[in-house]
Amino acid sequence: MTTAFKGIIAYPVTPFTQDDRVDLPTLTRLIDDLVGQGVHGIAPLGSTGESAYLDDKEWDAVAHASLQAVNRRLPTVVGISDLTTRGAVRRARYARQAGADALMVLPVSYWKLTPDEIVRHYATIGDAVDIPIMLYNNPATSGIDLAPELIARICREVPAVTMVKESTGDIQRMHRLVQLTEGRVPFFNGSNPLALAALAAGASGWCTAAPNLQAQLPLALYEAVAAGDLATARALFYRQLPLLQFIVKGGLPTTIKAGLRLRGFDAGVPRAPLQPLTAADTDVLAGILAKLDAGMR
Amino acid sequence: MTTAFKGIIAYPVTPFTQDDRVDLPTLTRLIDDLVGQGVHGIAPLGSTGESAYLDDKEWDAVAHASLQAVNRRLPTVVGISDLTTRGAVRRARYARQAGADALMVLPVSYWKLTPDEIVRHYATIGDAVDIPIMLYNNPATSGIDLAPELIARICREVPAVTMVKESTGDIQRMHRLVQLTEGRVPFFNGSNPLALAALAAGASGWCTAAPNLQAQLPLALYEAVAAGDLATARALFYRQLPLLQFIVKGGLPTTIKAGLRLRGFDAGVPRAPLQPLTAADTDVLAGILAKLDAGMR
Amino acid sequence: MTTAFKGIIAYPVTPFTQDDRVDLPTLTRLIDDLVGQGVHGIAPLGSTGESAYLDDKEWDAVAHASLQAVNRRLPTVVGISDLTTRGAVRRARYARQAGADALMVLPVSYWKLTPDEIVRHYATIGDAVDIPIMLYNNPATSGIDLAPELIARICREVPAVTMVKESTGDIQRMHRLVQLTEGRVPFFNGSNPLALAALAAGASGWCTAAPNLQAQLPLALYEAVAAGDLATARALFYRQLPLLQFIVKGGLPTTIKAGLRLRGFDAGVPRAPLQPLTAADTDVLAGILAKLDAGMR
Amino acid sequence: MTTAFKGIIAYPVTPFTQDDRVDLPTLTRLIDDLVGQGVHGIAPLGSTGESAYLDDKEWDAVAHASLQAVNRRLPTVVGISDLTTRGAVRRARYARQAGADALMVLPVSYWKLTPDEIVRHYATIGDAVDIPIMLYNNPATSGIDLAPELIARICREVPAVTMVKESTGDIQRMHRLVQLTEGRVPFFNGSNPLALAALAAGASGWCTAAPNLQAQLPLALYEAVAAGDLATARALFYRQLPLLQFIVKGGLPTTIKAGLRLRGFDAGVPRAPLQPLTAADTDVLAGILAKLDAGMR
Repeated sequence: MTTAFKGIIAYPVTPFTQDDRVDLPTLTRLIDDLVGQGVHGIAPLGSTGESAYLDDKEWDAVAHASLQAVNRRLPTVVGISDLTTRGAVRRARYARQAGADALMVLPVSYWKLTPDEIVRHYATIGDAVDIPIMLYNNPATSGIDLAPELIARICREVPAVTMVKESTGDIQRMHRLVQLTEGRVPFFNGSNPLALAALAAGASGWCTAAPNLQAQLPLALYEAVAAGDLATARALFYRQLPLLQFIVKGGLPTTIKAGLRLRGFDAGVPRAPLQPLTAADTDVLAGILAKLDAGMR
Repeated sequence: MTTAFKGIIAYPVTPFTQDDRVDLPTLTRLIDDLVGQGVHGIAPLGSTGESAYLDDKEWDAVAHASLQAVNRRLPTVVGISDLTTRGAVRRARYARQAGADALMVLPVSYWKLTPDEIVRHYATIGDAVDIPIMLYNNPATSGIDLAPELIARICREVPAVTMVKESTGDIQRMHRLVQLTEGRVPFFNGSNPLALAALAAGASGWCTAAPNLQAQLPLALYEAVAAGDLATARALFYRQLPLLQFIVKGGLPTTIKAGLRLRGFDAGVPRAPLQPLTAADTDVLAGILAKLDAGMR
Repeated sequence: MTTAFKGIIAYPVTPFTQDDRVDLPTLTRLIDDLVGQGVHGIAPLGSTGESAYLDDKEWDAVAHASLQAVNRRLPTVVGISDLTTRGAVRRARYARQAGADALMVLPVSYWKLTPDEIVRHYATIGDAVDIPIMLYNNPATSGIDLAPELIARICREVPAVTMVKESTGDIQRMHRLVQLTEGRVPFFNGSNPLALAALAAGASGWCTAAPNLQAQLPLALYEAVAAGDLATARALFYRQLPLLQFIVKGGLPTTIKAGLRLRGFDAGVPRAPLQPLTAADTDVLAGILAKLDAGMR
Repeated sequence: MTTAFKGIIAYPVTPFTQDDRVDLPTLTRLIDDLVGQGVHGIAPLGSTGESAYLDDKEWDAVAHASLQAVNRRLPTVVGISDLTTRGAVRRARYARQAGADALMVLPVSYWKLTPDEIVRHYATIGDAVDIPIMLYNNPATSGIDLAPELIARICREVPAVTMVKESTGDIQRMHRLVQLTEGRVPFFNGSNPLALAALAAGASGWCTAAPNLQAQLPLALYEAVAAGDLATARALFYRQLPLLQFIVKGGLPTTIKAGLRLRGFDAGVPRAPLQPLTAADTDVLAGILAKLDAGMR
């Protein structure tokens, strides 16, 4: 068992029952499927896992069940995003004692944070646990944008932060991060349609919810780039791109849960105010999946 | 006692003790001061009230104490913003039974919401209570931007929504709202530096945290516009504009709490990850307040 | 004859013949009409005048004919925007010798300009002529955005620059300009739908193409604000707002020329790549004008 | 002699004499150098060539001299950007008769253009000449942004448009273009720091001003990608990235002319309002070039 993260890190959704409670048995099955598909790591309670919509008790239950389900077969990185630092620390400590290998920390905000406030947020969490932190930048959901310069500063000042996940979808950010850290900080792609560019730019891996619906194409893309086979990588990328674009555009929990249902796997619907994918969009998704599946045969 | 909202609606901050608990006695004193200054309404648990950073138990305690402190001397509108619809409904019901005259509902998001999801969020809350709702648009903090067309649609489709608070700082939004609602939906300014333009455009009032530090100038500005005295209004506006710009730029809880301390009123500091105003910025604020006070004598 | 600019400064369009040549007799009639309507100043060769699409010879002819048509009955401010400084100087000198009272200088760019480059551009033009310059900021058309701080710096460093026209549509820009210049630099509104807010904020006037189609409402709005009658000003503003929004959204030369034709005045069509207003949009404009005219009776 | 464009298409700057006239002998030497370095095509009068700042007579002289200098040793694509369609047509015809193999057409604007206006602009130019057109999208300089959907429409509706150059720096635009055109329209990268991502995504080439200062690294990067050697491509890319970032950030004519002088080649300075690179920035550039040269030995 290693904590050296690389490759395809998969986000399970958080299944809900019909009466809007977390559905742990289904979560366990889903994670088992992901591990069985051959992904390289599991990231419970990420954006896709609707962690922002869970109360503390639910969150703890999902964290515990997820880590039990993985059962150290793969490295795990648990998502930590809470509006208060103390809430984030509490979740970080819980995940640590429940067996997480690493934490993926996304600062979220209501009021904008200064760089110093963001650094202190990371430092406080880093001081509270003894496992590595993957810094996570995703302004579209969190409302906070960490420029490459700030990310590099945090990597210098907070020893626990040893990895970065970049989800802005701007390849220039990754280039600048490589420059500012002299290539010494592993970075991961978090913007699905940027996968080819990010891996070409030297990303260590790709954190993605796509494997919930289709794991083989992301895995094959990663392997092709790792093997330096650009032509194959490019072909694999354009084949899966419609799926990647669709799940990002429609929101990951919404589209992944709709896709799982199309796959015959009932993980429920996202929590309100999120609503199930519309019938029209579900038809589009069905078409995308059918075309992908046909191409895999 | 009337619930006809107009004029200066003041946001109290939520005081914290040194060990980061909500400080209800201080909150009561603060609200008493605001009522005594002559403001026209009180809006507990708004953005300034750090409601996003309170857990449910704290939130309920602050709502209850605030409404007790006002004691029906003025109309009250309690801020409701929660990532889940069910959490928002719970808070709305609590505020209703605790005596709120109205609710100010801000949809917040992690994942982007579709227009239909936003409408349903408002409708669900509206169905759960029998008091009016002030729709609140503040994309800079909430991550969701309600265009005037969507606001007008919600006013049409959700009967409980009878007022609008616009905080984008774009006067064109207010003009379009007047046009789309044919002037029948009262709207309030929520962007402090837009106060003159908004009142000139016909806003019914101004929701603001400024009265925590200076109530007389906002009140005088409102009265001057109500009296149609534009020259006086303009002079009053430019006098207080440096304060308005400063508190917006530095974040309302951060700057207002620093200003209260300068005023000799200890409401504690904002909750982490927010940090106290820096010493340098506190000096700037002291200068602004000193100049304002000199001008008032 | 005074050069003290204030009030409604009207932009004539530049009429073209059917074979795409400048139509000076029609231009003369149009300017005569505008003067007759009672506007307070004339601004030939502004954005509305399609000056960007004229070659030097055409430009000189239009400048000369416009100033002849005004014949010193009103103050004139001639628009100067050219990609090269030497071209701008040439046009400035021509306008000066042809009798312009002032110049309205808009820096345009292909490559972005640094603040120093912008200052030098103004200084070079200011050194070349001995008439006042109105600095003009309109990033939507020019590709260069002059922040209030830069505008204030230019007003300090280039003595010829004595007035500002702000067309970003952001009222905060005007507030900051008042603060930075301590109210000593007269500023004009250049964003039609911002007219009420700008005049309320203390603008000296409003540079607008609307008088080509409707001069009385802009004039009445200006007079109401000057008289401090906010209620009348507000009512007048909302009455003309649909026209103001329409002409801005559709592009001023395109919509104004379509409107003139609806008024029975043939000023031709804009120069390609600009195309005439579509039939559908022309119908919308006809409806707006008909409603306005009905309200004036 | 072929017109099949691919690989590194180099933009020469337009040299000026000390008294601000175009310097054709120096231009001829510069183009000769570029051809000698082994680039795959020459693009006179692009953005880097300051074509926007030349009058018609100068433009014609530069076009003629450039094509003479290339003398059909390499494919040539001449930049056409003019505010009026008739001006663009005139330049297109001139370039055609002077021997250009293709035209690179950038719609520029003062007033925003509708999609229909943009299509007609391309169609009119396409009808006027019988050589292929490379559609060029560069909103940062032109003020007009052509979405991938509009680009694909133009490729369908205007037969002369057979290639695309994308300069937004957004790799997603290229992915969408590949999808919308089903991979049938060759596209070129026009944003220097996007070179690796664009070539990985399948770009046919890279239009760049970098070869004025350093041709071997861009050529080597292109060859590495063409050979499918991603590891080498990545290493080559990061080595030249500081130069690519610097020349984009400081403006291409400004930085390239400063760099040429550092290389001992006097191409003069850019035309006002553009100013020469500051001394401090020139030192930075000298450092970047020295480091690159050391790495080449």
